[in-house]
Amino acid sequence: MAPQRATLLDVARRAGVSRTTASFVMSGRTDMRISAQAQERVRHAARELDYRPNLMARSLRTRLTRTIGLVSDTIATEPFAGELIRGSLATALQREHLLFIGETEGDASVEKRLVEDMLDRGVGGFLYASMYTRETRLPPVLRGLPLVLLNCLTQNRKVPAVLPDERAAGRTAARTLLAAGHRDRIWLVGESPAGVYAGRERRLGIEEILSRAQLTLAGTVDCLWWPEPSYAAVRECLLARARPSAVICLNDRVAMGANQALTEAGLAVPRDVSLLSFDDSDLASWLRPQLTSIAIPHFDLGRRAVELLLSDQPAQGVHRVAMPLRERASVGPPAAATR
Amino acid sequence: MAPQRATLLDVARRAGVSRTTASFVMSGRTDMRISAQAQERVRHAARELDYRPNLMARSLRTRLTRTIGLVSDTIATEPFAGELIRGSLATALQREHLLFIGETEGDASVEKRLVEDMLDRGVGGFLYASMYTRETRLPPVLRGLPLVLLNCLTQNRKVPAVLPDERAAGRTAARTLLAAGHRDRIWLVGESPAGVYAGRERRLGIEEILSRAQLTLAGTVDCLWWPEPSYAAVRECLLARARPSAVICLNDRVAMGANQALTEAGLAVPRDVSLLSFDDSDLASWLRPQLTSIAIPHFDLGRRAVELLLSDQPAQGVHRVAMPLRERASVGPPAAATR
Repeated sequence: MAPQRATLLDVARRAGVSRTTASFVMSGRTDMRISAQAQERVRHAARELDYRPNLMARSLRTRLTRTIGLVSDTIATEPFAGELIRGSLATALQREHLLFIGETEGDASVEKRLVEDMLDRGVGGFLYASMYTRETRLPPVLRGLPLVLLNCLTQNRKVPAVLPDERAAGRTAARTLLAAGHRDRIWLVGESPAGVYAGRERRLGIEEILSRAQLTLAGTVDCLWWPEPSYAAVRECLLARARPSAVICLNDRVAMGANQALTEAGLAVPRDVSLLSFDDSDLASWLRPQLTSIAIPHFDLGRRAVELLLSDQPAQGVHRVAMPLRERASVGPPAAATR
Repeated sequence: MAPQRATLLDVARRAGVSRTTASFVMSGRTDMRISAQAQERVRHAARELDYRPNLMARSLRTRLTRTIGLVSDTIATEPFAGELIRGSLATALQREHLLFIGETEGDASVEKRLVEDMLDRGVGGFLYASMYTRETRLPPVLRGLPLVLLNCLTQNRKVPAVLPDERAAGRTAARTLLAAGHRDRIWLVGESPAGVYAGRERRLGIEEILSRAQLTLAGTVDCLWWPEPSYAAVRECLLARARPSAVICLNDRVAMGANQALTEAGLAVPRDVSLLSFDDSDLASWLRPQLTSIAIPHFDLGRRAVELLLSDQPAQGVHRVAMPLRERASVGPPAAATR
């Protein structure tokens, strides 16, 4: 236990970055180009040194009573959850609101109880968050209350909702491959997208751009969104002597499995096959080569939802947040031998 | 949006497991041997189908007022956080308590405010949780309140604390390698453990068992606990023609980087080098070969902390929860050529 309180400079030194970089990371700024690795090192160092940012202290000294409730289906199984909460929390505090978090695991009774308890203690507005982009039913207890849906939407689209722009991300994926020179043998790997909102939207975006260029996907490889099923499914296609020019994976875990199968088949990424993915989870920068991936902007989703909730104008409809392309080393021109 | 509520059988079918397996996963039972992959598939299917377990409904129908507050430093940057919360939540609900979660990012002002707000609304006991095992300072506002520390401990050890048994895990690691026949050239890869509680304890446990067998670590490879620094550090050692018989990595991310460096050097795991790790994060089962890893029992830590908080006997001292060995495919006998 450190006898003296660690400073931001201590954190920066331990993480091997500048004080400015550490400051940007700790204050959650995403407009600066800081690598995911450096960000993680700063946060890691901050935890180790028990660093306490003063970020939020100022807005709390006045003991304001305005409070937002974040009601979430599950934060238990998605590592992503943290950044959604982080974005919501930082923005709430900037606007001098406190944030209470309730986890419901999707249980209607828990939801009702949580919302009522939060109302009892003066919560004035709600974020209803899903950790997994999807269509949802609005709990009756929330109807008529100040509310923004975060990473989910209702079927009738009436309640204001903040979502990643999945279809535009699909378009970005296709454009990235076309720009690198790929014209054919483009595979899409991931589960049949009928049931998964993100998969369905991403595929629509991909097909929109390909069809404008009078191209089509060479095929889809149907598998669950995890490394092992993806490895097995891609391996099977490769054993059947099919050879892709580029592979779009519906998330980074799928890309991990595809990469394993390609490597095993003696195909190098990106020399022989380009690999492109979605999510930009930690995994994307951990693979070799590092994955080009289209990020889910979790922090920005949380920030935007709080901004909408606290805006003077009533927020309506669906607000889509851009999914930025993170270019790394897994996309290149088509293999020369195949042209 | 599904017009009809999904059943547990729907979840099981989609995940490709039996109804019984799905039931065990959804109710959070950890005493059954269910692969991490299958567990994830069930949770994934449950989210997709918007499945709502009735697990907690019963205990809430009576509108009990007993409430526990979980005050956490940060749930933002550790994917692990979820299972700690999940274990706490499930146990609280079994005991007919509600759980409120507050995130402080380690800010003392936020902590004070959160605890006071929770007290105002009838919270009767607290879990003070760190997502990263470490020594901590107890916030003054919590002193004298019913309290259990979760995954952290105070320097004087007076406040009851629930922690993973890191030193025993280190002993397990060393015993596993000795049992496989390794006697020398055992490397430890990870950051100099002085500042990191888990690293320090794990190393002490490893050295305890090696020294009983009159053996020592062949060396330690100093790097941050991430894939890229581990890859670079292990690669450098291998380029210097050092050849390990077995490599113990201080977490799975470190093992991922070590595995990349070994593969690049033409060394196969476990044929040429055995690889053993800690954490048993998702990553452990995603790598090829799948990693043998010693698990942090996050769910059980949360459960144990709630049990202690609600027990009739005042809980005192440090309660250590066993870290189970997950045997997979990365440990084998020493390479024949080197014996």
